[in-house]
Amino acid sequence: MKLQFLGTCAGIPSKQRNVSSLIVQMLQYEDECWMIDCGEGTQQQLLHSSLTLHKISKIFITHLHGDHIYGLPGVLGSRSFQGATSKLQIFGPKGIKEFIEKTLSISNTYVRYPLEIYEIEEGTICKTDTFTFKAIQLEHGIPSFGYRIIEKDIPGELYVDELKKLGILPGPIYKRLKCGETVRLDNGLELTGTDFLGPTKRGKIIAVGGDTRACENQKKLALDADILIHEATFLHKDVQLAFEHYHSTAYEAAKLAVESGAKALFLNHISSRYSKGVEELLEEATAIFTPTFIPNDLETYLVKQNGDVSSL
Amino acid sequence: MKLQFLGTCAGIPSKQRNVSSLIVQMLQYEDECWMIDCGEGTQQQLLHSSLTLHKISKIFITHLHGDHIYGLPGVLGSRSFQGATSKLQIFGPKGIKEFIEKTLSISNTYVRYPLEIYEIEEGTICKTDTFTFKAIQLEHGIPSFGYRIIEKDIPGELYVDELKKLGILPGPIYKRLKCGETVRLDNGLELTGTDFLGPTKRGKIIAVGGDTRACENQKKLALDADILIHEATFLHKDVQLAFEHYHSTAYEAAKLAVESGAKALFLNHISSRYSKGVEELLEEATAIFTPTFIPNDLETYLVKQNGDVSSL
Repeated sequence: MKLQFLGTCAGIPSKQRNVSSLIVQMLQYEDECWMIDCGEGTQQQLLHSSLTLHKISKIFITHLHGDHIYGLPGVLGSRSFQGATSKLQIFGPKGIKEFIEKTLSISNTYVRYPLEIYEIEEGTICKTDTFTFKAIQLEHGIPSFGYRIIEKDIPGELYVDELKKLGILPGPIYKRLKCGETVRLDNGLELTGTDFLGPTKRGKIIAVGGDTRACENQKKLALDADILIHEATFLHKDVQLAFEHYHSTAYEAAKLAVESGAKALFLNHISSRYSKGVEELLEEATAIFTPTFIPNDLETYLVKQNGDVSSL
Repeated sequence: MKLQFLGTCAGIPSKQRNVSSLIVQMLQYEDECWMIDCGEGTQQQLLHSSLTLHKISKIFITHLHGDHIYGLPGVLGSRSFQGATSKLQIFGPKGIKEFIEKTLSISNTYVRYPLEIYEIEEGTICKTDTFTFKAIQLEHGIPSFGYRIIEKDIPGELYVDELKKLGILPGPIYKRLKCGETVRLDNGLELTGTDFLGPTKRGKIIAVGGDTRACENQKKLALDADILIHEATFLHKDVQLAFEHYHSTAYEAAKLAVESGAKALFLNHISSRYSKGVEELLEEATAIFTPTFIPNDLETYLVKQNGDVSSL
C-alpha cells in the first residue's frame, strides 16, 4: 500500500504545507488510486508526483469545508482535459453534488468521463470485489466523516504437499479447494477445502479521519486499523481551543491509536502555527504511541504486507 | 505602477506556470491592489510574494472558465480568516455572483468584511476619484471581457515663479489656481488658473485582455494603452487552432499593440505546450512590437511614470 500526502495543513495553506489531500494506492490490486479530500491546489501538488489524474477512480470527501473541497472543480476539469475516459466516483456529505454541479456548470466545464456523485450517510457506502468502504460520522462544526477501508480477508495458503501425498496434482481441484469447497474425487474420496488451508489472513484496514474533536464514534473508525490517518490540528496544551473548534490534538490522536489497537499512526491537518517545525507534535504523540509519522507535503510512505512502514 | 504576475498559464496548470492571476498596484495612490482573474492556487502563489490578501480591494474577473475563477473561494475565505475587514469589490460576467455565493455557502464560509459582487456588461463599471474602469466585450466561447483602467489626467505644473513675480505667495490661492479656477485678488486683479499651468499630463491607461480570439473590439480595449497585457495562448503557426478555440497568437497580440498605439506589451496565458521555453513566442511578438515581455510566474515589473518598464 502506498500513501501519498499531497496536503497536510489545516484551514489555509502555508508556504510549507498545502491544504488537505491524500492519495491511497493499493499496489497489489488494480492500477488505480483513491483520493481523500481535495483542497485547493491539489492538482498542482499532483504535478510534483508520478501520478496522473487518470488513475484516480474514487474521491472521498470527509466534509465540505473549503480546505477540503476547493480543489475538486480543478481536478475534475483537468482530468477530462487530459483525456481520461475512466469512471470517477465521488463520495461526500450532502451538498457535495450541488457544489460539483454548480462549479462545473457555471464555469462551462464538461467532463468526458462518467462521473458519479454519491451523497453519503454513516454506514457502508461502497463495495468492490476486494474492498468495503465505510463512513463513520465524527464531531465537527458541520457533518464530517471518517472513512474505514476494509480489504477482504486473504485465504490461507493451500497445503500443496498434503494434496500431493494424496496423489492430487495441481489443477482445477486446487482452485476449488482454495475457495473452501468440498470436492468429491472419482475414487469417492471427499476432500474439504478448509482442511487443506492455512489460517485466513485478515485484510488490511485503513482508517482516515475527517476533521473532528475527540469523540466516542472515532473508535468505530479506528478499531484494529493497520493504518490510522488522523488530524492533529493542535498541541494538547491547546486542547480547549481544539475542542471549541471541533479539532483534535496530537495527544488525542495518539490516544485513539492506543485505545483502538491501531498499528501505525499518521498525523495530518497540522495548524500553520506549527509550520516551522512539528517536533513538539510528534513528541507528544510518540510519548504514548509508536510508530507515529507526521508527513511533509508530497512525502510518500510504503506500507508492506507485514505492516512495516517506510518513507519512500 | 507595479505588475505582479501570479499565474501565466493557459487552461490547466503546469509545473512551471500556474493558471491565471495578475496583481496591479498603483504605487503613487492608495495602499491597495487590484487582482485580475483568480485561477486555482492564486492564494498559494500570493504566499510567495510580499502582498497580503488584506490589500486587495478589487478583483476583476474576465470570464468564468475555471482557470480564471477556481481560486476565488479560497482567496475570499482566507482573506477573512486572516482578519481583513476592508471592503472587497468583485466584478465579473453574469454568473460570478452565483459562483461565489454557492461555493461559500456550501462550504460554510462566512466572510467578515463587506463583499460586493457586481455582474457587469460592457461599458464603465466603476469609478473612483482617480480611476475609471471600463469593461470591453471580447470574443471567446463564453462572455469574456477585457478591462481598461484609465487614470485621470494629472494637472500640469503650476508656474510658481510667475506667481511670485506678481507677489502672490504659496497658500490657498495656489490650490485654487491649480484646479484651473479664476481667482479675484483683493487688489481687483483676476487670475485664471489655466494661464499659470503647464500642459496636462495624460493619466496612464492599463489594458488587460481576457481570453479572446483576435477581434475588432480589442482596439477599444488597447487604444493608446501605456501597458497592454494580452493572452498569447499559441504561436501564429497554430492560428487556425487559436481561432477555433477562441484564443490569440503572440503575433496577433503584438499586431494589436502596434495598431492600437500601445507602449508596452505583456503576454500571458501561455499554453503549457510551450512550458519548456517561450523564446519562440517572444521572437514572434518582438519581430513586430517592442518592448514585449513574457513574464514568468511571480515576476514583478515596475512601470515608471515615464513609461519605462523594468523587472524587479
